[in-house]
Amino acid sequence: MFKVKIYTIGKLKDAWLQEALEEYEKRLSRRVEIEWILAKNDAELSEKLEGPYIALDPKGELLDSPSFSKKLSHLFQQQGSRLQFLIGGSEGISPALLRTSLWRWSLSPLTFTHQMTRLILLEQLYRAMEIDLGTAYHK
Amino acid sequence: MFKVKIYTIGKLKDAWLQEALEEYEKRLSRRVEIEWILAKNDAELSEKLEGPYIALDPKGELLDSPSFSKKLSHLFQQQGSRLQFLIGGSEGISPALLRTSLWRWSLSPLTFTHQMTRLILLEQLYRAMEIDLGTAYHK
Repeated sequence: MFKVKIYTIGKLKDAWLQEALEEYEKRLSRRVEIEWILAKNDAELSEKLEGPYIALDPKGELLDSPSFSKKLSHLFQQQGSRLQFLIGGSEGISPALLRTSLWRWSLSPLTFTHQMTRLILLEQLYRAMEIDLGTAYHK
Repeated sequence: MFKVKIYTIGKLKDAWLQEALEEYEKRLSRRVEIEWILAKNDAELSEKLEGPYIALDPKGELLDSPSFSKKLSHLFQQQGSRLQFLIGGSEGISPALLRTSLWRWSLSPLTFTHQMTRLILLEQLYRAMEIDLGTAYHK
């Protein structure tokens, strides 16, 4: 079983987003346990963060989905099946937190709402696992 | 008033997605009228397509949100305030349709579900308009 902690700022606002996140968490639950750590602001986020983390940053490294699948597999191996992802608030992730991250990954050079970023992250985690398993999901 | 036609394959499956799309369509409706053209497959999509269109393609041009806002503004001017976007099905857009597109735009090198692509497209259109208006949305 893999474990993923996702650190993010703010609460969920939209019912549709909650429903979508639950759908992907359920799909992931056979292989990955997701834990959400919600903070009020950057300061609280820094306090709660423990251990290595991946920072989601539009200026980070861009990968296609098969390459992300390989990268994820490598990171899980390297980090003992446990990974932490950090999604910034509306101002993005502070430079201090970007500097100390394990890896800066970009979902896109476009800015997404941090709420939609949660959904895209879960869908990409699910897609990466399915690519690794060789299922038809990613086709 | 701007008009945007979005051509895509397949129907909506998820209630949460329908709700999210409606939310962004409503937000856009002051400045942009969205029309969805749903086709069963590539052949039907080709038949329905008329006039110039922008192809959403993971291998297309990557832009950040402020650059997309400028590009969108330029395209609306060039195309008489009317634009068409094409989202492919699970196999992506056929090479023939990619070749004859006005512009190949990449939301990300990652593969997204074509359903989530609809939502990301609407959010980026809304974001681009807000950047153009200088509102606080994109902050």
